[in-house]
Amino acid sequence: MPADERDFLTDFHHSMTFGATENNGVERQAGTPEHGQLRDWFRSLGEQAGFTAHVDPIGNLFLTKEWVSGADYAMLGSHLDSQPLAGRFDGVYGVIAALHAAIALDREVSEGMLRPTHNICVVDWFNEEGARFAPSIMGSSVYAGLFDLTETLQIRDPQGVTVAEALDSIGYRGTEPGPRAAAYAEVHIEQGRVLEREGVPIGAVDRSWHTQKLNVEVLGEQSHTGATIMSDRHDALVAAARVVLMAEEVVEDFEPETIVTSVGKFDVRPNSPIVVPRQVSLVIDLRADAEADVNAARDTLKRRIAELAQERDITIEVRDFDIRPIQYYPEEGLELTEKAARDAGLNSRRLRTMAGHDSVPMNRIVPTVMIFVPSVDGVSHCEREFSRDEDLVSGLHLITQVATRLVQGELDGTAVGGAR
Amino acid sequence: MPADERDFLTDFHHSMTFGATENNGVERQAGTPEHGQLRDWFRSLGEQAGFTAHVDPIGNLFLTKEWVSGADYAMLGSHLDSQPLAGRFDGVYGVIAALHAAIALDREVSEGMLRPTHNICVVDWFNEEGARFAPSIMGSSVYAGLFDLTETLQIRDPQGVTVAEALDSIGYRGTEPGPRAAAYAEVHIEQGRVLEREGVPIGAVDRSWHTQKLNVEVLGEQSHTGATIMSDRHDALVAAARVVLMAEEVVEDFEPETIVTSVGKFDVRPNSPIVVPRQVSLVIDLRADAEADVNAARDTLKRRIAELAQERDITIEVRDFDIRPIQYYPEEGLELTEKAARDAGLNSRRLRTMAGHDSVPMNRIVPTVMIFVPSVDGVSHCEREFSRDEDLVSGLHLITQVATRLVQGELDGTAVGGAR
Repeated sequence: MPADERDFLTDFHHSMTFGATENNGVERQAGTPEHGQLRDWFRSLGEQAGFTAHVDPIGNLFLTKEWVSGADYAMLGSHLDSQPLAGRFDGVYGVIAALHAAIALDREVSEGMLRPTHNICVVDWFNEEGARFAPSIMGSSVYAGLFDLTETLQIRDPQGVTVAEALDSIGYRGTEPGPRAAAYAEVHIEQGRVLEREGVPIGAVDRSWHTQKLNVEVLGEQSHTGATIMSDRHDALVAAARVVLMAEEVVEDFEPETIVTSVGKFDVRPNSPIVVPRQVSLVIDLRADAEADVNAARDTLKRRIAELAQERDITIEVRDFDIRPIQYYPEEGLELTEKAARDAGLNSRRLRTMAGHDSVPMNRIVPTVMIFVPSVDGVSHCEREFSRDEDLVSGLHLITQVATRLVQGELDGTAVGGAR
Repeated sequence: MPADERDFLTDFHHSMTFGATENNGVERQAGTPEHGQLRDWFRSLGEQAGFTAHVDPIGNLFLTKEWVSGADYAMLGSHLDSQPLAGRFDGVYGVIAALHAAIALDREVSEGMLRPTHNICVVDWFNEEGARFAPSIMGSSVYAGLFDLTETLQIRDPQGVTVAEALDSIGYRGTEPGPRAAAYAEVHIEQGRVLEREGVPIGAVDRSWHTQKLNVEVLGEQSHTGATIMSDRHDALVAAARVVLMAEEVVEDFEPETIVTSVGKFDVRPNSPIVVPRQVSLVIDLRADAEADVNAARDTLKRRIAELAQERDITIEVRDFDIRPIQYYPEEGLELTEKAARDAGLNSRRLRTMAGHDSVPMNRIVPTVMIFVPSVDGVSHCEREFSRDEDLVSGLHLITQVATRLVQGELDGTAVGGAR
């Protein structure tokens, strides 16, 4: 195995020691000590390779190398934070691959083999996962100007800790502006099974799904589980259970694999074994390949929830939240990825991402490339998440190839992606 | 209004200032600062009236007056802890009424109007509610020898704090043994609507319902809400929602008002908006007038849950927990209550309690009397809980009458109550 590949795999596999869980997963939610320790280690890797670290006010960590004085940066990256009890690939793979790609390019530049017109920057975006602090894709969205910095810093986790306080606690609330990007590229595990099913090592992501969330507040009346006869109750949990089932059932109106719906967050109050619950707060996540399908599912759910509230004589408030339209990645970036794959001797295919990524906001402001490598069984956000070393290495080669083209300005002048 | 009644109502209404909530309720869960502050105030009331305070190792607070050297105690009481966002009557009414009854008796004894054969003790049992530390009815069950002291002290709240630590934090982890009881009486709001519906001011409780809980662990698989297609999921929350609905539906097999079922506690992991939940822990509470009905409901639920687990290809563990058979209060105590009511010019009727009370374990070890006063609309464990001053005063008179008979040994030699 070439030294480059071995060094990359060594660093990647070392990253899973930060916040390691019992079943080969990791847990390092945004702004926790484990997250901070991984960032410190990653930052020192970059500094040892001659890169300079910068941290912006929302806690994005940039490692830069300036080859061309004053030029913009080709930016490569992903995120080091994780979900609770998460897999060890999601996000961190893309960050470690980005650093190794940048180191390879730097060697070529210093050897005179590569003449860049842009500088290079590796980025670890803050809080892509959004498990502790909602919404997700936070750091890159602030960088891209889609979220307000001041408001975002004041968002609180369930214990009341703000983003600002969490960043202070791990030493990553910076004061520098982020470097100016000329282009962005990200490599990530697919988190689905298209590539695995078709035996294709590289996915060129052409668009994201349309997504939105619904914040649902079910307001019943608290009472005694023993002393309150059934007909006197206004049980918020029973009604909320019906909402969860409605959210699952609504997909039956659509073609298979074109829409997903879920309830991931569900909080019961007062949550005592002998008290009929007065309130349930839950979040429905709707995602589909077509905006019309998301809207149709949303309308059906709102209608059925209103009927349920009437039937049960309780209040259910439903509020649209975190609507993210389909984003198209630019055609030039897709063609560049396909060319780079051919040059590297790798098959590729275009595919859409059902999940959100930091590349989605970046795609709004600079020409952006998003690359997938296969996920075994398509599972993600769990300890069983897995990708094979050889697929990780193929992705490393590809992001290196793509970066080589980006630092030479190959996407300069390309229109940014976005909604159509 | 007689001074006795006025003083009682003044003290009772003052108690609601400890842990007062916005909507006329209270929140002082076991071992919290608000709970400790109320206990301190109550203890000083007793000490000012010449009673001596004792705290046992599980944090029960006893106020005693020794009239007859070495004699056992007639014990009156209830509990000062509350549910979250609770009503201001549940428990605390019985404790304040008990103290005022004891003060009235003490005055009669000191004036030579009453010749007791037993001493008097007012008790505030620790953690009747069980919202923070499960199971409920904790302090009286330890006193009665039904729960092990050492194990109980190690029970933890959701934040990991033990009972022992919580008691230390409010200064109520005592070292004295509790006084020896000769009999026990408790007055409490009904928390149902039988007395209100029939316009009867006093209920003589003849038995408790058969109750049990089921601890249910739903074990699915964590995955990404966006990237995981519906058919690949093992969503623990969807299955748990079905369990909640099953628990409600099972009552349809029985006569109305003979059984209640609820899920009050429901915890989702990891509880992140963009993660399909891997685990839900929930507690089903089953209560009925007939043990056979609880068992039939339990068996039906276990069968349906097993079918659900198979259908969804996930694991659901169901464990019996906190089984409490029907307890009968002794006939002699009922007759004593009825006689006392007649002497006080109050109508009474017998009725069963659907809720548990500290009198249930006490009934296992000494002759025990349980008295109810009306609850407006029957609602309880919520801020809207309400009882009228005149009903509270009737209950005060009755517990005073009952106590007068108990300290004269009127239930001596009566067989204790319990299961039949």
